[in-house]
Amino acid sequence: MDSWVLYDNSCDFTIYNFPLGVAWYKEKYSVVSAIGDFVIDLDYLQQNGYLDPISLPKGIFSNQFINDFIGLGNETTKQVRERLIFLFDSKTAPKDFILRKDFYLIPISDVSLTLPLNIGDYTDFYSSREHATNVGIMFRDPANALLPNWLHLPVAYHGRSSSIQVSGHDIIRPNGQLKSDADPNPTYGQSKLVDFELEMAVVVSKNSTIGQQISTGDAGNYIYGMALFNDWSARDIQKWEYVPLGPFLSKNFASTLSPWIVSLEALKPFKVNGPESEKPLLPYLHYEGAQNYDIQLDVEIVSSTGANAVVSKSNHKYLYWNILQQLAHHTVNGCNIRVGDIYASGTISGPDSESFGSMLEISWQGTKPIKLSDGSERKFIQDGDTVIIRGFAQKNEIRVGFGEARATVISIK
Amino acid sequence: MDSWVLYDNSCDFTIYNFPLGVAWYKEKYSVVSAIGDFVIDLDYLQQNGYLDPISLPKGIFSNQFINDFIGLGNETTKQVRERLIFLFDSKTAPKDFILRKDFYLIPISDVSLTLPLNIGDYTDFYSSREHATNVGIMFRDPANALLPNWLHLPVAYHGRSSSIQVSGHDIIRPNGQLKSDADPNPTYGQSKLVDFELEMAVVVSKNSTIGQQISTGDAGNYIYGMALFNDWSARDIQKWEYVPLGPFLSKNFASTLSPWIVSLEALKPFKVNGPESEKPLLPYLHYEGAQNYDIQLDVEIVSSTGANAVVSKSNHKYLYWNILQQLAHHTVNGCNIRVGDIYASGTISGPDSESFGSMLEISWQGTKPIKLSDGSERKFIQDGDTVIIRGFAQKNEIRVGFGEARATVISIK
Repeated sequence: MDSWVLYDNSCDFTIYNFPLGVAWYKEKYSVVSAIGDFVIDLDYLQQNGYLDPISLPKGIFSNQFINDFIGLGNETTKQVRERLIFLFDSKTAPKDFILRKDFYLIPISDVSLTLPLNIGDYTDFYSSREHATNVGIMFRDPANALLPNWLHLPVAYHGRSSSIQVSGHDIIRPNGQLKSDADPNPTYGQSKLVDFELEMAVVVSKNSTIGQQISTGDAGNYIYGMALFNDWSARDIQKWEYVPLGPFLSKNFASTLSPWIVSLEALKPFKVNGPESEKPLLPYLHYEGAQNYDIQLDVEIVSSTGANAVVSKSNHKYLYWNILQQLAHHTVNGCNIRVGDIYASGTISGPDSESFGSMLEISWQGTKPIKLSDGSERKFIQDGDTVIIRGFAQKNEIRVGFGEARATVISIK
Repeated sequence: MDSWVLYDNSCDFTIYNFPLGVAWYKEKYSVVSAIGDFVIDLDYLQQNGYLDPISLPKGIFSNQFINDFIGLGNETTKQVRERLIFLFDSKTAPKDFILRKDFYLIPISDVSLTLPLNIGDYTDFYSSREHATNVGIMFRDPANALLPNWLHLPVAYHGRSSSIQVSGHDIIRPNGQLKSDADPNPTYGQSKLVDFELEMAVVVSKNSTIGQQISTGDAGNYIYGMALFNDWSARDIQKWEYVPLGPFLSKNFASTLSPWIVSLEALKPFKVNGPESEKPLLPYLHYEGAQNYDIQLDVEIVSSTGANAVVSKSNHKYLYWNILQQLAHHTVNGCNIRVGDIYASGTISGPDSESFGSMLEISWQGTKPIKLSDGSERKFIQDGDTVIIRGFAQKNEIRVGFGEARATVISIK
């Protein structure tokens, strides 16, 4: 397919994509999509009858969040995406629609993309075997790096919703309790080991009720799509606080979400098989078909002087536990989910060191610093460093991208 | 003080209290208070000018949640409470107000009390030394029951907001992965070790921003009040899943919140000193004055046949970390909080076995069953059992109660 909107081959927002986001412009919030270098004013399209074949509540796109729209259900959002394809495909686009483009196409640079979701609960999984193994080798026992439960269930914990920010917001280096092995007591100070975690987040589009189990076969009906996610971590705070109830202040100071949510519908062409299960799984974790996604992910660090390096090249397909298994596990006990909830993958590390998804692993606890383009070294993230996560999927001419999740670490004294 | 509304000495909702809740009646939600056996229709009071001395947004009480009202700030909610005392004190009440009582006093039994808060984030602390010690003895090492960080910081983790229910909703026994030490692999099934946790929850009434630290001295300005809380737990699921990231499915199937939130203002007379800190604390955890609360708590189990036993008599004052220290710690890294967030105490166990706050401790992992009034034994909670948490504070004639957090455990097959 070709769009009458021109964009180049490396564009994330092709005619195959149509992600959802929220833009602040003309003094209001609007749910928008994107193509090429433009956001699409969906409210204008609805008001002017271009979405008429689909039954939609009035004003659904005049909204600070996409929750109400995706809450209409995947069947409806799928129809809207198909309608957008029809409207933007040069073979099918109505002439009057193209003529009026200046009314609904706004250069992305002219708008401010805001947090697109009202996030109720945020869960973080720990679903990359390579990441869990690396952490286990470093912090526990190299001979038994994976804990006994890891191959039997997708380990997860609850994170903080309030501090999830959209791409572009600075990350304030956290203070907290730090304790070296040599010290008998902790000291108070700034974290010296601020780290990114390369993750992707799944966005829930349907409520379940307490007591309801969602099967792997049905889980897709509860998921709108995915986004890029950086689960910022303070390794020194984490080390001291995390036993026995898990990470808390080492994570909840901030997370960064990409402004664009890409639908599972758009990601269908990129489904691939995931790793084989090493252990026999309990039936509720069985699933049919290829359920991983071949999404290329990378992480770039750019210093305050512009020195840079791509420090990780990973892929969503490495995840040992797929997003259907994660949701089936999350609800096997009857825990309910709500539209706008997100659950993240956990750090997505691949098999080799170039594909590790955190500085903890890349620099192997600081023992193997990486070099930026100006020769400066990084073991963890320094003040002024911008961390940019990017992701896209490509198969032949079909390309679907996620934009970026970008944030700069700063200190306030 | 005496109210012209009659109630007996053991009443929770005296003229010293005026808690906040939300009632569903006449086909709508209303923010209400309570006195004696009545809820007070605050919307009626506002509409008819009885709250006129206080500047309040129109319709603030016509609301499904108390968030908007408590978000006006503690100074405003304090004025409203003082105004209610004036209106209900037999010495000061205007005659016309008393005459019109049938318009705004509704028997509690005529309304349905609903979840009063739109809860953004829910955090659970682990602040009872006795509880942490008991768990450490049972699950880890009796000689080193408390982990090294415990005496230096109030350990906490994030819980699930979506599954917090108001008192009166059944708790569905969760399914999940269970593994005995003898089995090489986990099995799937119903939790056999469903437990309550006697807790209290603190309700946040003021937003903070990312990067902002709230001091112990300022923390009181961010807290509206407290409620009873049961952090239901499935011990067998917990044991298998919780390493290394903490409890997840063993907790998030449900929690029970009391319908009434009691203001810190009403609890002021019950402030007492807490336990002495055993270790020198970092300065951000220092605090001034008596900051624990002498609130008597008990837990009753009532079986489906009506057999019962009070299985715990504990007290909020036992908490090693007080609610100001908890909030200072929660925000020391810049984590932001929002109106309606709650943070719970963790299980409140006292020094002797009669004051332990969970069946895990009371029955000492099932080795010491307790007896109900019909002679039947309980190690954990059985289907059909109702668990009722009650709490009140009393000093001379001043009595302030919390009502109850009640729920029955059921199975669905």
